[in-house]
Amino acid sequence: MVTWFRRARPRAGVPTITPRSEAIEVARVELAELTPTPERYLGQTAYLTLVLFENLGRAVTAAPTTDAKSRLTRAAAEMLAAHEGLVAELSARHDDPVVEMDPFRLPLDDFQRRTQGADWFEILVTCYVTAGFLTDFFIGLSAGLPNSLQRRVEALLTISDGEAVLVSELRSAIDASPRLASRLAMWGRRLVGDTMLVARSALQQGGQLPEEKIEPVFTELIAAHTRRMDALGLTA
Amino acid sequence: MVTWFRRARPRAGVPTITPRSEAIEVARVELAELTPTPERYLGQTAYLTLVLFENLGRAVTAAPTTDAKSRLTRAAAEMLAAHEGLVAELSARHDDPVVEMDPFRLPLDDFQRRTQGADWFEILVTCYVTAGFLTDFFIGLSAGLPNSLQRRVEALLTISDGEAVLVSELRSAIDASPRLASRLAMWGRRLVGDTMLVARSALQQGGQLPEEKIEPVFTELIAAHTRRMDALGLTA
Repeated sequence: MVTWFRRARPRAGVPTITPRSEAIEVARVELAELTPTPERYLGQTAYLTLVLFENLGRAVTAAPTTDAKSRLTRAAAEMLAAHEGLVAELSARHDDPVVEMDPFRLPLDDFQRRTQGADWFEILVTCYVTAGFLTDFFIGLSAGLPNSLQRRVEALLTISDGEAVLVSELRSAIDASPRLASRLAMWGRRLVGDTMLVARSALQQGGQLPEEKIEPVFTELIAAHTRRMDALGLTA
Repeated sequence: MVTWFRRARPRAGVPTITPRSEAIEVARVELAELTPTPERYLGQTAYLTLVLFENLGRAVTAAPTTDAKSRLTRAAAEMLAAHEGLVAELSARHDDPVVEMDPFRLPLDDFQRRTQGADWFEILVTCYVTAGFLTDFFIGLSAGLPNSLQRRVEALLTISDGEAVLVSELRSAIDASPRLASRLAMWGRRLVGDTMLVARSALQQGGQLPEEKIEPVFTELIAAHTRRMDALGLTA
C-alpha cells in the first residue's frame, strides 16, 4: 500500500516500478483451477485489450492539449502492443484469432457502451479503473495456463507506463476542482459493477461456480480499486 | 499504374510490395527548396500522423465485425509507430515535441472534424484518401531535409500494410453495392479540397509561393488520388 502511494507521486525523471496488486496474488492462488482453456483465455483478453485500446483512442481524440494527447498515445501504444501480442499467441497456437475473439464481441462491446463516459475526464477514469481492475484479474486468472504462456501473458498485460500517464493527468485536474472530484468519484463507483461482471463472466464455463474461492478474489480486487481511487485523491 | 491495379487484388498470402506514387518523385524534385525546417516538418508530420491514427482508431471502433476490427488495428498500429518515430526524431534533436506540434493542432483538428465521415465506410475512405495523399506529399517534401533524417522520415511515412487493409475492406463492400459506390465516390471528391489545403499550408513560410513549382506537384498528387479511387472501383 505504501508503494502504491509512492507511485501516485512519482519523482520527475525517475522511472517508477509498478507494484502489482495484492489482488493478483490472491486470484493466482484461488482461481488457478478456474482458468479457461488457453484459446478461450487468449480470445477474451485479446478482445478486451482491443476494447481498452479503443477507449484510450477516444481519450487521445478528446484530449484538450497537445501535451495530454501526446502522453496518452503512449498509453494507447502500450495497450495496442498487448492486444497484438495476445493475437500473436493465438496465431502461434494455430488458433484463428477472429474465431476465438468473436464470442466476446457482443458482451464486451456492450460493456464498452455502458462505461464510455461523457467527457474527457470520465473517459480517463474509465480507462484507468477498468484497465486496472481487469488486468489485475486476468493476470491472476492466468495462473492455470501452461507455464511459459503464463509468463508471456503476464508480461503483455502488465500495463505500467499507460497507467502512470492516466494518474498524472487525472490527479492534477482533481486537485484543482472539488466539484470534478465528486463527479468522478461517482463515476468510478458506477464503473465497478459493469467491470466485475466482465471478470465473473470469464469464469463461467458451465456448472456452479465455487463462490468460496471467488469471493476473496473480488474482495481483493475491490480493495485494489479503492487504492486506485485513493491515488487520484478520490473516495471509492 | 499496372502495379497499382495488381496491388488492389493481392494474391492471398503473398506480401505485396507497395509501389510509391509518381507524385512523390515530382514533389521531391520541385519542392526540395520549399521544405520547412526539420523541427517544423517533424512537428507537423508528428501531429498529422496523430490525427490519422485517431481516424483509424474511430474506424476500429466502428468496425462491424471482429475480423475487420482486428485487421484495422494493424493499420492503426502502423500509423502510431510513425507518430512515435517522428516524436522520437524531435526528442533526439532536443526539440520539445509538444512545442513543435502545437502550432498545427488547431488547423489539423479542424481538418479532422471536416473530414470525419458519417459511418464506417466514409471513415475508411477518409483514412485511405487523406493518409494516401498526405504521406505522398510529405515524403516528397522531405527532400530538403538533411540526408539521414530524410531517409528515416521516408521509412516512417511509408504506410503500406495499413493501406492494403483499407483497400480490401472497402473493395469488397463497394463491389457488392452500386449505391454505396456512388455515395463513397462523392465523399472521396469532398475530401480532396480539405486535404490539399493541409498540404499547401506546409509550404507557407512567408513570401509568395512559386506556383510554377507547386502546380505540377498537385497535378501528380491528384493523379495519384485518382488511381487510389480506381483501386476501390470508384470514379474520382
